[in-house]
Amino acid sequence: MHKAIKLMEVGPRDGLQNESVFVSTQDKIALIEALVPPLADHMEVASGIKKQPGVSYAALVPNLKGFDRAMTCGIDEVSFVIAVTESHNKKNINASTEEAFMRYQEISKQAIQNNILFRAYLSCTFGCPYEGKINTENILEISKKLLDLGVYEIAFSDTIGVAHPKQTLSILEHILKIVPLEKIALHFHDTEGMALANIFAALSLGVSSFDASLAGMGGCPYAKGASGNVASEDLINMLNKMGLATNVDLEKMVNIAGYMEELLEKKLPSKMLRKMGACRVL
Amino acid sequence: MHKAIKLMEVGPRDGLQNESVFVSTQDKIALIEALVPPLADHMEVASGIKKQPGVSYAALVPNLKGFDRAMTCGIDEVSFVIAVTESHNKKNINASTEEAFMRYQEISKQAIQNNILFRAYLSCTFGCPYEGKINTENILEISKKLLDLGVYEIAFSDTIGVAHPKQTLSILEHILKIVPLEKIALHFHDTEGMALANIFAALSLGVSSFDASLAGMGGCPYAKGASGNVASEDLINMLNKMGLATNVDLEKMVNIAGYMEELLEKKLPSKMLRKMGACRVL
Repeated sequence: MHKAIKLMEVGPRDGLQNESVFVSTQDKIALIEALVPPLADHMEVASGIKKQPGVSYAALVPNLKGFDRAMTCGIDEVSFVIAVTESHNKKNINASTEEAFMRYQEISKQAIQNNILFRAYLSCTFGCPYEGKINTENILEISKKLLDLGVYEIAFSDTIGVAHPKQTLSILEHILKIVPLEKIALHFHDTEGMALANIFAALSLGVSSFDASLAGMGGCPYAKGASGNVASEDLINMLNKMGLATNVDLEKMVNIAGYMEELLEKKLPSKMLRKMGACRVL
Repeated sequence: MHKAIKLMEVGPRDGLQNESVFVSTQDKIALIEALVPPLADHMEVASGIKKQPGVSYAALVPNLKGFDRAMTCGIDEVSFVIAVTESHNKKNINASTEEAFMRYQEISKQAIQNNILFRAYLSCTFGCPYEGKINTENILEISKKLLDLGVYEIAFSDTIGVAHPKQTLSILEHILKIVPLEKIALHFHDTEGMALANIFAALSLGVSSFDASLAGMGGCPYAKGASGNVASEDLINMLNKMGLATNVDLEKMVNIAGYMEELLEKKLPSKMLRKMGACRVL
């Protein structure tokens, strides 16, 4: 196992997009400043944040317009989303897989010219809400194309939260034939409670980059009421306990998770928040 | 990994003992009949259940009196609890470790005479609320004594829910030097969300017997508001997905979990219950 694990905080984007309560721009800025990690939806938020040195602020960009906006706001790295399956691309980004690649090719070119790192999310790696089981060959084929575009990392994503640890091991063994270990990231939803088990399985193969979301925000659009992304503080706790440094202060994270619950006016699925019973200290 | 996994349902005992709502005797009987597995607190419950052939009904017995009662009710197997640490035995069962062994020696003798299987819970295997870290030597020493008493299985228990998968692997490697694989069971609380990750780690070493509690009932007396035992239906789901037969109907379990939420008038931590949105069909 790697001794230093990278954690990508997706709460302000993947987390908040699933909430019905509107979180004010000011609160979003305060949240990201408190979190330090990634970025959100609006230019005001992206521009309003007081940036910390040593932190890479990331934004999801669906097209060139989004990329240009991200640049205006001083974003450090960009991401784009593509699914393994044709049906999910049609429904989620309103483009065929081929059209999506054409869009991302443009973004990639611009990013390289601007000296900006870019990352791809590969949705539905572990299952698709429309097509069910995934053909491993399709994962490998799209991964190869993404590497050719120049992505610094591919976040293989369990979009609907159906992965189990044995599957994680077996899919990773295939992926590792094409994608170098240091370019693999994993993005798990905790819909069935197996996110940490999947991450442990991946750690055992040497993967060292994981997405997580503050307090476990995010939900699953295909299973109403289900859990969201794995909670950042739960992942940090596991990694800390296993001696894998994340460089993140657990207590501080739990406090921000408590603040998030106040903003959203509901209980979030974080285990460490329940255990440590955080109170707002921002 | 074993192809058949044993699941010990502890909801009616370990689960209910932590609830403030009183569940009526009739409801308890209905619950256990619906669940099929283990047993509860009162003789009326134990005597009231219509037993199914092929199911081993178990009861926790603290002393000889409890053992005799269990026999009167037609219980099939008994369990007793001992902690690795002196302080936990004092607080939890009001006896020194030595006194506890004297009690359990008597029960063991009676059980052997009555041709009844008996099982030990070894509390605080992964950490103690009073003494913190556990000396592995103490785990091995008590395990040896328990095997000498004639237990058919030792359930190594993460009483306060602090175990992580790397620790699970390392403690099991020590235990396996003393305890045969087929006599090892594991009892995890999901306080920090790592129960399934710990179970996956144990499965990889060939362990095939696990405790779980319907809907994740149980809580942690040392962390108010925290999760209880790993939810039976979440474990069954993971095992099913990994091709490890449990012989349990997931949909039926999720329905009973939904019924349990109605009885306790609160949300329980089960992930599959949230995902499958069960309704009462009993």
